[in-house]
Amino acid sequence: MASEAAADEASDTYSKFLQHVQRLSNVKHAGMVLSWDQEVMMPEGGTPARSKQRSALSTVAHEMLTSDEMAEMLDELEDEDLSDDRRAVVREIRRKHDRQSNVPRELVEEISEVASEAMPVWHEAKEEDDFSAFAPTLEKLVELKREYAEHVDPDRDPYEVLFEEYEPYLGVETAEEVLQCLRDELVPLVDAIRESDADLATDTFDGEFDTDTQEDLARDVLDELGYDWDHGRLDTAPHPFSSGNQFDARVTTRFSPDEPLGALMATVHEFGHATYTLGLPREEYGTPLGESRDMTVHESQSRLWENHVGRSKAFWERFLPTVKERFPEKLGDASVDDVYEAASEVYEDNLVRVEADELTYHMHIVVRFEIERDLIRGDIEVEDVPELWNDKYEEYLGVRPDSDAEGCLQDIHWSHGDFGYFPTYSLGSVLAAQLFANAEDDVENLDEKIAAGDFDDLHDWLTENVHRHGCQYTTDELVRQATGEDYTADYFLDYVKSKYGELYELDDYQ
Amino acid sequence: MASEAAADEASDTYSKFLQHVQRLSNVKHAGMVLSWDQEVMMPEGGTPARSKQRSALSTVAHEMLTSDEMAEMLDELEDEDLSDDRRAVVREIRRKHDRQSNVPRELVEEISEVASEAMPVWHEAKEEDDFSAFAPTLEKLVELKREYAEHVDPDRDPYEVLFEEYEPYLGVETAEEVLQCLRDELVPLVDAIRESDADLATDTFDGEFDTDTQEDLARDVLDELGYDWDHGRLDTAPHPFSSGNQFDARVTTRFSPDEPLGALMATVHEFGHATYTLGLPREEYGTPLGESRDMTVHESQSRLWENHVGRSKAFWERFLPTVKERFPEKLGDASVDDVYEAASEVYEDNLVRVEADELTYHMHIVVRFEIERDLIRGDIEVEDVPELWNDKYEEYLGVRPDSDAEGCLQDIHWSHGDFGYFPTYSLGSVLAAQLFANAEDDVENLDEKIAAGDFDDLHDWLTENVHRHGCQYTTDELVRQATGEDYTADYFLDYVKSKYGELYELDDYQ
Repeated sequence: MASEAAADEASDTYSKFLQHVQRLSNVKHAGMVLSWDQEVMMPEGGTPARSKQRSALSTVAHEMLTSDEMAEMLDELEDEDLSDDRRAVVREIRRKHDRQSNVPRELVEEISEVASEAMPVWHEAKEEDDFSAFAPTLEKLVELKREYAEHVDPDRDPYEVLFEEYEPYLGVETAEEVLQCLRDELVPLVDAIRESDADLATDTFDGEFDTDTQEDLARDVLDELGYDWDHGRLDTAPHPFSSGNQFDARVTTRFSPDEPLGALMATVHEFGHATYTLGLPREEYGTPLGESRDMTVHESQSRLWENHVGRSKAFWERFLPTVKERFPEKLGDASVDDVYEAASEVYEDNLVRVEADELTYHMHIVVRFEIERDLIRGDIEVEDVPELWNDKYEEYLGVRPDSDAEGCLQDIHWSHGDFGYFPTYSLGSVLAAQLFANAEDDVENLDEKIAAGDFDDLHDWLTENVHRHGCQYTTDELVRQATGEDYTADYFLDYVKSKYGELYELDDYQ
Repeated sequence: MASEAAADEASDTYSKFLQHVQRLSNVKHAGMVLSWDQEVMMPEGGTPARSKQRSALSTVAHEMLTSDEMAEMLDELEDEDLSDDRRAVVREIRRKHDRQSNVPRELVEEISEVASEAMPVWHEAKEEDDFSAFAPTLEKLVELKREYAEHVDPDRDPYEVLFEEYEPYLGVETAEEVLQCLRDELVPLVDAIRESDADLATDTFDGEFDTDTQEDLARDVLDELGYDWDHGRLDTAPHPFSSGNQFDARVTTRFSPDEPLGALMATVHEFGHATYTLGLPREEYGTPLGESRDMTVHESQSRLWENHVGRSKAFWERFLPTVKERFPEKLGDASVDDVYEAASEVYEDNLVRVEADELTYHMHIVVRFEIERDLIRGDIEVEDVPELWNDKYEEYLGVRPDSDAEGCLQDIHWSHGDFGYFPTYSLGSVLAAQLFANAEDDVENLDEKIAAGDFDDLHDWLTENVHRHGCQYTTDELVRQATGEDYTADYFLDYVKSKYGELYELDDYQ
């Protein structure tokens, strides 16, 4: 009888805890709706009120997460004998509770304020190509974020602590190793590509493409891939993103007359994010079991669809006829190879991350990673950034920016105070290759299925191995569950060497 | 020194109180964004998550409003010597605090749940023309809302208590008197109109009107009236509404090929709501001084623009050329009188409130008011509703519904548990006439200005006398401030008698 009473009490605490967790999650999801609306729908004049609404929800969420009641429930539950699922829920909330409880609310608010003010400062500095105008703000943000890391854990490398905000489980050492490895392997590969005489059909998408028709095509590609319109929608936004939950996962993209392929790939990328979100278990909405794993896994889903599907020959065998129907005059004569080559071109002299190809992209990340890590660790000063940036571009990408606007001022992330975010882009691409290789092993004739427009088995594989688990497993556990081995860059390196070795006819890489 | 210290303490309490009030307001505004999105943008499959998000915000807001801390601050502030503005803020929060604190949260949640479930039940009952399918749900809602009223104030008429949810200051007696008076005066006026031989140009808008062009026209009319697109947007929704705050007040409308005038008037109506919202003081956003007064005043603004501007000859002198440009083939030959007459037609046999003209509209309201009042007071039973409804339609409107679908099942309000809401539609129309008559007195040549498309003075008058005050004054005080006299139906009756007496050539009414 005693043990039954104890079990009842346990379940009472867990029920109460769960109710708090769900309410907290709903407040956060409400905040996401407000952000989506602000990016996509809100008239510009709405900003002052919207900022206050978002800040109020964020304060409410912070108080819920760090309340004494939450702390007590977490302590109680950690002494209890819980199922694996419940244990995972407690683990995820505990981690966030500890992080946020250790940081004074005033510091969080100061960072949020400085970051709000930093946005226009960064924007103008970029417009004016004047790094010195942004430098004091960047210095302040570096200082505040170091202070933040110090509160979270005074005994650890502050960059490690910040990195864990975006990828809590793979470890910053893995990030360092992987990025080092990408640098070591990709720099010579890109060199070899640049020396290649291969003549790729890089002018396939030259010209001006009507943006309304591009939007029709974006809807076509979402239809083709199986986007669930009852649970999503497509809009345009200056910076494409995806947002929502397993009942309502929306995508945005952007159109420019001379970038039809860019818009299409951005749409497929965001589709990958949304498909992950839609694959989360509905019955677990509002708990970590119904939330997506962090940035690495999310980015693996978008990159898998963008690169391993969207830039594959098989996909273009299927989709080219649709593109030709939309743009008969521009692309009537294009072959699958033409489009495949255009979609896979490695650019000679691109300086801009968001316009990079799938190979040099990672060199852009390496530059940012090395600089932000050293900034946060205090090994370099803000004033050193432009010179370092340009040197690294020259070293890793063989091209030197003429201006800071095209150099270290190009990305918005640091003005948000987001240090530690960049590596997850590459970590996600690496994981995409690992997952896709496993899907290829498990799904019979995956390539042929893609060429036939049959994406069901791939969807099923991803749902089964990734989506349905939510945050039940940590990132490293999830990778082992899905692939039978530890997280590794091997598959990514095999993939790019084989693909680009063949495309650029590189004897050493095929 | 002592009194200075006391003043400091006072201001400390007030600052803390204000912070709570603003946070509460922001949570509510966040909820409004979620509702807008749900009506206008959300894919249908998003409902389960959205319901939970809205419910979480509503729980959070409830807890903020009814917390012990809030109760203590209110008690302290009521003992203090506050400015009029601060006194008004305390008054408004006190009223809501008391109402919500008295009602058990479980009852509020039960009502919310039953109402959620009632929606589809009502919808199907209406589709199937089967009142008996809805009756048990309606009975449950009547019972729960009576219980609600009992908690708020066990010593007062429960209908009075519910009515105050929508109009807290004019008093249900005023509502009863005004509606009685409208019934007594309008029934014979409508009879006289029906006997009139006047031949109005009621076929001006017959035919099919392209809905895309109708949308262009809706944007034209919003431009014409001075809608601020930097702080608003127009979308379509099944039931037109307006939503937002002084930085972002959006309107929706709906288009049907055979209802071009209806769409236009709905747009002007929602413009009136949005213009009120946009006229609230920006610096008071988040406090009652920056919130709109309740339903009566809000509806007065929409009706003023819809009826006193949008259905006036002066307005059509200005706007007809634009309408002709959009629909040259349909309306190329229409005169100002043609359009004015079409916009002012009193229908012979309309049974549907939302399709009613500006005169018979109030008889629809009287029917609903009398029935819901008697239901809540327990003077009639739910099973009596259909018969009573039909009898009253016959008596007041001279037309008897053939079915409950076209009768007592037509409106959604009761399935939401909204008893006491209907009267505010008529109270608002009545106030619109009182305010407009005063604006006509104060603004030189208002009619000519409207005919010239110059709405600035009218906007200024409304901002000065209504919008900028937010909730500083109670409804009755606001009316006295704006018009120099008490709330009265006299202006409305004068307006309709004069307008319709002339239109229908009624000797007794001109």
